[in-house]
Amino acid sequence: MPKISKKGVEMPASPIRKLTPYADKAKKDGKKVYHLNIGQPDIETPEIMLDAIKNIDFNVWAYTPSEGTLAYRTKLAEYYNKIGYGITPADILVTVGGSEAITIAMQTCINEGDEIIIPEPFYANYNGFACMSNVVVKPILSHIENGFALPSADAFEALITEKTKAIIICNPNNPTGYLYSKEELEALKELCLKYDLFLFSDEAYREFCYDGKEFISPMHLDGLDENVIIMDTVSKRYSACGARLGCLITKNKEVIQSALKFAQARLSPGMVEQIAGAAAVDTPDAYFESVNKEYTLRRDTLVGRLNAIEGVFCPNPGGAFYVVAKLPIDNSDKFCQWMLEHFDYNGATVMMAPATGFYSTPGSGEQEVRMAYVLNNTDLNAAMDCLEAGLKAYPGKI
Amino acid sequence: MPKISKKGVEMPASPIRKLTPYADKAKKDGKKVYHLNIGQPDIETPEIMLDAIKNIDFNVWAYTPSEGTLAYRTKLAEYYNKIGYGITPADILVTVGGSEAITIAMQTCINEGDEIIIPEPFYANYNGFACMSNVVVKPILSHIENGFALPSADAFEALITEKTKAIIICNPNNPTGYLYSKEELEALKELCLKYDLFLFSDEAYREFCYDGKEFISPMHLDGLDENVIIMDTVSKRYSACGARLGCLITKNKEVIQSALKFAQARLSPGMVEQIAGAAAVDTPDAYFESVNKEYTLRRDTLVGRLNAIEGVFCPNPGGAFYVVAKLPIDNSDKFCQWMLEHFDYNGATVMMAPATGFYSTPGSGEQEVRMAYVLNNTDLNAAMDCLEAGLKAYPGKI
Ligand SMILES: Cc1ncc(COP(=O)(O)O)c(C=O)c1O
Ligand SMILES: Cc1ncc(COP(=O)(O)O)c(C=O)c1O
Repeated sequence: MPKISKKGVEMPASPIRKLTPYADKAKKDGKKVYHLNIGQPDIETPEIMLDAIKNIDFNVWAYTPSEGTLAYRTKLAEYYNKIGYGITPADILVTVGGSEAITIAMQTCINEGDEIIIPEPFYANYNGFACMSNVVVKPILSHIENGFALPSADAFEALITEKTKAIIICNPNNPTGYLYSKEELEALKELCLKYDLFLFSDEAYREFCYDGKEFISPMHLDGLDENVIIMDTVSKRYSACGARLGCLITKNKEVIQSALKFAQARLSPGMVEQIAGAAAVDTPDAYFESVNKEYTLRRDTLVGRLNAIEGVFCPNPGGAFYVVAKLPIDNSDKFCQWMLEHFDYNGATVMMAPATGFYSTPGSGEQEVRMAYVLNNTDLNAAMDCLEAGLKAYPGKI
Repeated sequence: MPKISKKGVEMPASPIRKLTPYADKAKKDGKKVYHLNIGQPDIETPEIMLDAIKNIDFNVWAYTPSEGTLAYRTKLAEYYNKIGYGITPADILVTVGGSEAITIAMQTCINEGDEIIIPEPFYANYNGFACMSNVVVKPILSHIENGFALPSADAFEALITEKTKAIIICNPNNPTGYLYSKEELEALKELCLKYDLFLFSDEAYREFCYDGKEFISPMHLDGLDENVIIMDTVSKRYSACGARLGCLITKNKEVIQSALKFAQARLSPGMVEQIAGAAAVDTPDAYFESVNKEYTLRRDTLVGRLNAIEGVFCPNPGGAFYVVAKLPIDNSDKFCQWMLEHFDYNGATVMMAPATGFYSTPGSGEQEVRMAYVLNNTDLNAAMDCLEAGLKAYPGKI
């Protein structure tokens, strides 16, 4: 019998899915489960985007150019130039979700065995993508006490070696919700210029910034054009996760040309999606205003409720739709499993993501959980009632 | 300035696109260009599939499970079981095109530095996928004289080393159109069992078999369940290349479980596509009958016209919608470029794919071109008029 590959063995399974069997069992047993574990928003996709799908008007569902249609890239450039990126359609490669933008960026820029530095906790699938490309992730610890702010330049420099090729940031951050400041990005700029590093900026949550805070991208910084690669997606922006439509943006010509070769091998991004994506660029501002209002309300509820529970600490994040909270527990994997397996409050329980899955330093995140506020306020409150009661009853409370 | 990766440098650009600038120039100069170079059919997508898109009925365009929806996998299993594969939905991983099925199969099964044997000429992007995974392609020459039949078992055995992990076949074949016989597949089975190899079967063109010939898959062979991985796509089956919807099928549990981890990292295949793909399974037989009738007519035209030209030889392939023809020329890259750059016949010319791009043995395919019969019969005849005249005028004729 032929054996699978070493990579096939080592590839990490999705950490946020490993408790799914317990959730399924809980549901089978008749419990209601509040899902705060995954980043699938309940927000409606803009009508303009769904209408574009319903109104398709072609007879042959054909390949598009590997880099994406010029029509879609032109609309995208319009979107990005409105927020000051100063790009042309030629700087954009349309990808199959933000996920593919990340894999293509890694393949294009990083050699096997080379290192990338990522502030942790970080989006868990970066580990998987790194494994696929045999790239070594060097985590740099950020801390819940200061809301997961960017670690100091000194801390970065202590990790930089001959093999360091890139820094990845996710802004606003998944899982922490942290929104990087202009000063923090300027610090990253100095590092990238000094050590000739790529700066990968994952901006999946760009549209979700709260309290009047401004989103700043490395694209807004001068003198960093050759270093910056933006990895983006419509998944969260338009609550269109199932579209599998993203893009890679860079003004570095060598990178975009090489990235195109990887895109050519897989032929084409989706055609219907690009039509819908082009339409989505005209989504009225009112959509984002109402979505952000809703998310702000939910965040306020969640953060407020969490900090009101004894022994719980949750920073108030400036963006995205996640929080990481510290709980008075022995172990977040055990606790989250216990909540599904052994606990209910009025017949309901909560599924959360143990934060351990977002750290690559062993032993980190054992008292932290990530929650996505992808439920309405009523359900969020009910979920917090469960959590509060669960923390009282949990045998591993500390 | 940061440098791109070694892989970014070495990744092959798509060989069938390298003449595109010459085609664009020819069009700008007012020439009509008959495109026989790419596998984008002009055939209409089944209405049932397009209607499924137009009738979507959801408000949140959400992720689906990473392995694909159960609804779609159930319909797919129905399709495959009708042709005797004896599978369950659990044996299927839905992928983003056949392209992703190939990359996931390679990542799951083949280590860096390991070898895969592929009869050449072969689908050029296998080279790209191998480069992405640092897998070594060992080509095994098939010959135009016998229509590109499978090379002998001895020829395979001469290439097998400790590092050989898999054999890839594409059946019916792109670029040759060759349809493998039961006996040829049995020979591959013996090799795979003897040397514990995976057998990757790329069946993108399964539905296109002519002259009453039967399609046989390695899935039809007994005792090979642990070795066989099917890589499939709706791209050609339903002329739905822009759907980016494929699948990987295997009864090997270890492979499917490991493949799922790669699928989880990229989250989800497209949601609308899976709805359309499920609908497509009910495409009436009449659709395939009329498409196959059309392709048979075109193949007969193309093969007939080619063999009527002095010095040209073209085998009559049993499937797909490609032929590889041998021309009386010095060099197919030069000839194909010359046809675009320096030739026209009544204001028209033909774009073909130099077969060199489908061989990895240097110097092979220099007198061969691949043509896709994706144009109607009238245009095909006009294209052959051009080619015939072009061959007379070409200075590098031999
Ligand atoms: C930080 C981050 N990056 C990238 C992605 C990938 O998104 P997609 O592939 O759906 O575009 C996600 C999805 O949750 C994410 O949270
Ligand atoms: C032999 C073969 N395999 C795989 C593919 C990939 O097709 P897709 O990614 O569109 O499913 C193609 C496309 O032309 C092909 O010819």
